[in-house]
This record gives sequence, C-alpha cells and structure tokens, in this order.
Amino acid sequence: VNAAPLLDETHDAALRSWVSAAASDAADFPIQNLPLGRFANCADPQPRLGVAIGDGVLDLRAAVNAGLLQALPAATQAACAGAWLNDLMARPAHEVVALRRSLSALLALGSRERQRTEACVLRRSDVRLLMPVDVRNYTDFYTSIHHARNTGRQLRPQNPLLPNFHHLPVGYHGRASTVCVSGTPLYRPHGQALREGSELPTFGPTQALDYECELGVYVGRGNALGQPVSLGHAPDAVFGVCLLNDWSARDIQRFEAQPLGPFLGKSFLTSVSPWVVTLEALAPFRIPAAAREPQAAPLSSYLHTPADRNFGGLDIRFQVTLSSRAMRDAGRAPCLIGSPQFRDQYWTIFQMLTHHCSNGCALLPGDLLGSGTVSGPSDEELGCLLELLQGGQRTITLPGGETRGYLQDGDELRITASCVAEGRASIGFGACVGCVMPAL
Amino acid sequence: VNAAPLLDETHDAALRSWVSAAASDAADFPIQNLPLGRFANCADPQPRLGVAIGDGVLDLRAAVNAGLLQALPAATQAACAGAWLNDLMARPAHEVVALRRSLSALLALGSRERQRTEACVLRRSDVRLLMPVDVRNYTDFYTSIHHARNTGRQLRPQNPLLPNFHHLPVGYHGRASTVCVSGTPLYRPHGQALREGSELPTFGPTQALDYECELGVYVGRGNALGQPVSLGHAPDAVFGVCLLNDWSARDIQRFEAQPLGPFLGKSFLTSVSPWVVTLEALAPFRIPAAAREPQAAPLSSYLHTPADRNFGGLDIRFQVTLSSRAMRDAGRAPCLIGSPQFRDQYWTIFQMLTHHCSNGCALLPGDLLGSGTVSGPSDEELGCLLELLQGGQRTITLPGGETRGYLQDGDELRITASCVAEGRASIGFGACVGCVMPAL
Repeated sequence: VNAAPLLDETHDAALRSWVSAAASDAADFPIQNLPLGRFANCADPQPRLGVAIGDGVLDLRAAVNAGLLQALPAATQAACAGAWLNDLMARPAHEVVALRRSLSALLALGSRERQRTEACVLRRSDVRLLMPVDVRNYTDFYTSIHHARNTGRQLRPQNPLLPNFHHLPVGYHGRASTVCVSGTPLYRPHGQALREGSELPTFGPTQALDYECELGVYVGRGNALGQPVSLGHAPDAVFGVCLLNDWSARDIQRFEAQPLGPFLGKSFLTSVSPWVVTLEALAPFRIPAAAREPQAAPLSSYLHTPADRNFGGLDIRFQVTLSSRAMRDAGRAPCLIGSPQFRDQYWTIFQMLTHHCSNGCALLPGDLLGSGTVSGPSDEELGCLLELLQGGQRTITLPGGETRGYLQDGDELRITASCVAEGRASIGFGACVGCVMPAL
Repeated sequence: VNAAPLLDETHDAALRSWVSAAASDAADFPIQNLPLGRFANCADPQPRLGVAIGDGVLDLRAAVNAGLLQALPAATQAACAGAWLNDLMARPAHEVVALRRSLSALLALGSRERQRTEACVLRRSDVRLLMPVDVRNYTDFYTSIHHARNTGRQLRPQNPLLPNFHHLPVGYHGRASTVCVSGTPLYRPHGQALREGSELPTFGPTQALDYECELGVYVGRGNALGQPVSLGHAPDAVFGVCLLNDWSARDIQRFEAQPLGPFLGKSFLTSVSPWVVTLEALAPFRIPAAAREPQAAPLSSYLHTPADRNFGGLDIRFQVTLSSRAMRDAGRAPCLIGSPQFRDQYWTIFQMLTHHCSNGCALLPGDLLGSGTVSGPSDEELGCLLELLQGGQRTITLPGGETRGYLQDGDELRITASCVAEGRASIGFGACVGCVMPAL
C-alpha cells in the first residue's frame, strides 16, 4: 500500500483507439482516459452507464448484453449494466482495474472485437449526459493554503490563516440533494443579507454570486461505521474525480455562517462535470504532495505516509472561463479568468478521505468530497471571484469592455481541466458549465 | 393553509384500542398516537413498516396483504408495504391523514375488523426496531435562544448572541450516513484536539464527549430544486418528528470548527428514536410559537404568518437521564439530568423548513432536520453537558457519589418525551438511547 501507483498497458502513450476523435472535445478522451458517465438518448431514454472515448460513448449496458465483458466477474458486469455508477464504485479496486483493461482492449486499434464493440458506441453529440452518481453525502473541504490566506486576509489581515490549517484538512458537510450535473441552470438564489449601509438584513436575490473551482473526489468502496481507512489504504477507497463548481452567494453566506458555517449560501446548487475520471487514469499524473510550509508542525501520524508525500499530489491544470450574454451576442470567445493548478493544494485527496473517517464516520460508495477552491500563488491562479475581486476592491474587465464584480444574470461559467506529463498521453475532464438565470 | 390544525375522531380522548397496553412503555402509544416505524423479527427478518399501538406493533405489510387497507389509494397501500418509510413520506398529506383514520378504525375497541387485524399485530418485545427512514440529507439547526446564549456566553461573555440569531433559524448541514437508530453503540471517537496546556493538537480519543437533546423533524413530500415552500404550506411538507441525540465531541469540534463549522466533532454518530410521531398525532399539542424578544427586529415576511405564530409551537416535554455502569451495577435508577421543553424553542419547525428551502434547496422525502439542542431558561431545562457543566466549571454528582464532567465509557444516555394537554390523551415518543463504548 505504500508503493507508487501502477502503470500498465492501458497507460501506454502509443495506444490509439479506432473510435473517431474529430470532435472539438475529443482530445479530452483518448483511450488512456476512459472516464465513466451516465447518459440517455432519444432512441432509449433509460439512463445507463457509458465510457467516453474520442467523439463517442461506449454504452456499457449494451456491451454487457453483447457479452463483450464476459471475462469479468458477474458482479462487475451487473454493476456495468446498472443505472448509476454507485454499484461499480462499490466493487473492489482490482475489479475496476480489470474493467479498465477490458475496455482498453475492446477500444484499441487492432481489437478483435472492434465490430461488435462498434455496435455499442454512440456519438457523444447524440446523447444527453446525466448525473453519473447517486451522491448520498457531499463534503466540502478547504485545502488550498492560497485560498485560505486570500480569503482569511479579508477578515483577519494580521492573522489570515487559522491555527488548525496546518494540522488537518478543514472540511464541512455540504448539501447532497443539490449536487447536479453540468448544464443545470443556476437560478439566482434568494436569501437574507446585509445590504450596503443597513444594519438589518433584507431578504432578496443574492447580489454577490460567486463560483468556486474545485476538484470533486468520489469515494469508492468506503468504510463501515467506526472503521477508519488508513492513509496507506486511502487510494483503494478513492474511485475517481470530477470537476466541481461550488456556487456561493457571498452575501447570504456572510450573514448566516456564524457560528456553524456555510448553509444556504452554498446549498442552492453544486455543479459537477458528467465524466468521472478514475484514479487509474490519473496514475501517470500522480506527483509529490505540495511542500509543507517550514513553520508547520510535523503531521499527525495518521495523516502521513512516505507514499502520500511522494505520490499523493495530482498534476491537474484547471481553466475557468466566463462569457457574458453580451459577449456571446457579439460572437466573442469566453474570457479566461483563472488557471489554478491542483499541484498547489496543501492537502492531498487521500489525506482528505482518511481524515474524514478518522472519527469512524462511514463513507459510502459515490460519496463526494470537494477539494475546496483550488487557488495558486499568482493572480492568474485564483479559483473564485471572492479572491479575484479582493472582497470588492477590484473589478474584472471583460472583452468588449463590460466590467464584472460578482456574476450577472446571463453569465456562463465554464471549468475545464487537463493532465499533461512528458511521454504520456494527455487526458481531459470534459466541462463543468453553468449559466446564471434571473431569480425565480 | 392558515387555519388551526384539524382534529378529528382519531384524536378523541375517549377512544381506546383493543390491543393490550400492559408493557411499561405502552403509555407512549395509545390509539391517539399511531407512530410509524420499521422492524424485523426472527420469524421474518425482512424489514417492514409498523405502527406502535399499546404493547404491540401492527405489521403494515401484513395489513396490506390481508386487504385491511384496501379502501386507501393503491399508492398508499404500496408505500405501506414498502421497506422504508420514505415512500409513505412522499405521499400527499391527505393520504397520510386517510391512513391514520383507517388505522384508528382498525385498532379501536369495537372494530369490525378486530380479528383479521389481530393477526397482523406482533408483541413489541418480540420485534427488533430498525432505522425507520432512509435519511438522504440531515440538517442540524440551532433554534434554542437559551442554548445559543448559554454556549455563546462561554466564548463571548459580553455578547453571547450573534447578530443573525433573531433574523433566521441558523443551521448547518450534518452527516446523513451516520444517522442511526436508538441503541446503536457509540464508540468514543478519535480526533485532533488541543489537550490542556498544549499549543499543538494531539490525535486520540475525545475527552469531552457530550450529548445534545433535540427534536428531529422528517420532511414529507419536500420540494423540487428552485421551488421554495412557503411558511403557509410548511405543515404539509412535514411528515413527523422523532427524538434525536446529536452526540458531540467538544474538544474535536472546538479545534476544527473555524471557519467552516462542526465536522468530525459531530459526524461519528447521530441517534434517532425508532418511532416517527406524525404531525397529525401532534395536532392537539400545537401551541403558540415562543414569544419573540422585545428587542428583536420584525420577522422577514417569508418567516411570518399568523398561523405559525398561533399554532407553530409544539408542547413536547423531554426527559434526559444518565446511568453509569456503577449505577447499573448497584441497581440504581437512571438519574434525570435535564427536562427541556420544546415550547421554549425560539424558531418553529415550520420556520426551519421554509428557511431551509428559501434559496431553492431541494428537500427530499425523509430528509431529517434537527432542532438543535433544546434548552429552557432554568438549570433543570438544559439539553447538553456543555451547558450543564458551564464549559468545565461545574461537575454533576450522580446517585452513588460519582461525579461527571463529560461522558465516561459505560454511561448510558436516554432521551424520552411526552405531550400532555388537558382533555387529550397523552402521547409519548419511545426512547432514544445510546451507551458509550471505549474507543476502538
């Protein structure tokens, strides 16, 4: 359990698929990626699981029914034919690895099963992508030291970082019922907030709507009540990751959050990208965890292993773009407003998981852990408007001359990401998109 | 929607059941109560739904199969035959009322269906009570002004109540996966905390294990994303209530909770009583909401209706007892340590629900809302040790001479409650019990 992540033939950069990759986002989904999702189409409105490959989606239920996965255990096949990813997430890690190898073999150039597999591949443009996981529990962390300092500085200029930050990955429970797939419209939420110049709150549509660019981590097998997962075993308990936008209404959040933390300022919507990139696909992009700051106390032993220090980081590069209605009407391209990197995150996703269940808390297959806003040290690497606007001291100028404080109705926010490493096929994540609609 | 809660023949104090009521807790379950739960027994280990009546449990699946509920809509019958209460909770309020009337008629003295119904009634001592609801989302509120002042005073003696308290029911997301039925053992959780005299945290078993006596509120039909429930309609969205113990590790909570609120100091276990007392059963005990303090600003209009002011309160009287292992070994009775009353709660359960979805947050059938610690103005009406011990300045003396700070291994904590009103049959809730086990 303390070894480097394993690479196998599915990670070979020379591997190619016979599925076309002409579409604009096909580069996200080479055969080295094989992310899992859930979809329906006009011909069959029943939701089912799929694998993104080039321009296409492999229908996993059809593949099972065609006998293409019959070398796999019956339980793996049954999970692949299910209606949600949760059953597959509950399978042991070695079954998930075996599935990846089978899928890679079916989809590779030269596959002997190409013809029968081709009958199970749909064009991605012909399907509707659905929420992939029945998320039972959602937890949001706060693991970027840059984000913590930037936001803490606005409240406590002399002492931005709280004493617990270096000791544990701070987290809080989020709202699972409003975790929705990319594309779900975001209606500007109402709430109580202190408006400028008033000592009493008023109830109305938020005037400080923000996004937060995060990585989402899906739990795999999880753990039983009272039985923690050690850091050494944490990689076996992580199924995969997605892009996540933790939409936030800063004015509502500010008024409500003492003493018990964020609530309605967050729970109106959390968006996730439709594809779950497995931990196996990320193996070539595992890097050392971010260096701990020199003044930090040594890690508590349950949060430290050499393997986590050496391979706990992930080299994922995010891009956040904004396009206003005026920009779209004028045919302008979206404007890049942030390029944070996950390598700067102070805590690893494995530390998050191990800390979460260190008190015996049960994690269920498909539970979602948000990393918290991903922000880096430079102004180009900030992951939310609260930081970009420096708490209202700055504005952003968009192409065409509009200025932006917080998000306006009609604004479309898009998070994408990619993993790049020398000698490796780059992989992407698809997109996590949301458009701000006027308050209902 | 603004009228007083309706009473009907099921609330008649003169009504009696033919089911025996000799057992010690049978007084909690007269025919005017009819709370719903979930159980299994040796003869049939399949979980099914039941109704507590006197000493017995009416097996709802058996009642459906025997045709005893055939006057009800097919959907109600299907929900009654299901494995969890959630499907029944999702039915419209009028169907739940109709079910109550049917059950009352079947179980009343003089029922023409007594013989066939009797075949569906098991002795409660012969069944194992299970978690009644598949809780998808758990939210904990903080709605006692006495609890808020008592705990706030420990941190901010000059200014115990935060500015938002009078304006909205403060709440935060809890952990749904560790909401468990009464009787689930509580293993003392590990966590990071600052031990006396140290500036650095250490990881180990909590040394400040507390309980919180709360009312749990189960959501009925709920609401779709983006579609709030007005306060006038909130009673239709509440299915019923239970007793809830929000176990808390104060040392873990204190270290982790800034800036994002409680997390692992709470998520190791939340216990609920096995029976769900429906809002219909509580109709005779609906009372005016607690008076607002004179200095409080007027309520925001979404949190105010005359009906909520007049009938939003609940006259529920809790009793919290503690028994140590030494007390049990010596044959001593449990010691009463608190008798809080829900009538003192500053916010109503309907205000909690309406506020929760005021931002568009979706509430699902069976979602659980905790009231927060129920504490009253006197020393006898405190709902947690944090208040009873005044943050460590006091101890409790138990019968036999033991003293208690926070909970010790072997301590058993029991919450019970009853509703009493003149000219009405009193009803009870069963018990929410947990015994502290040594750390694993």
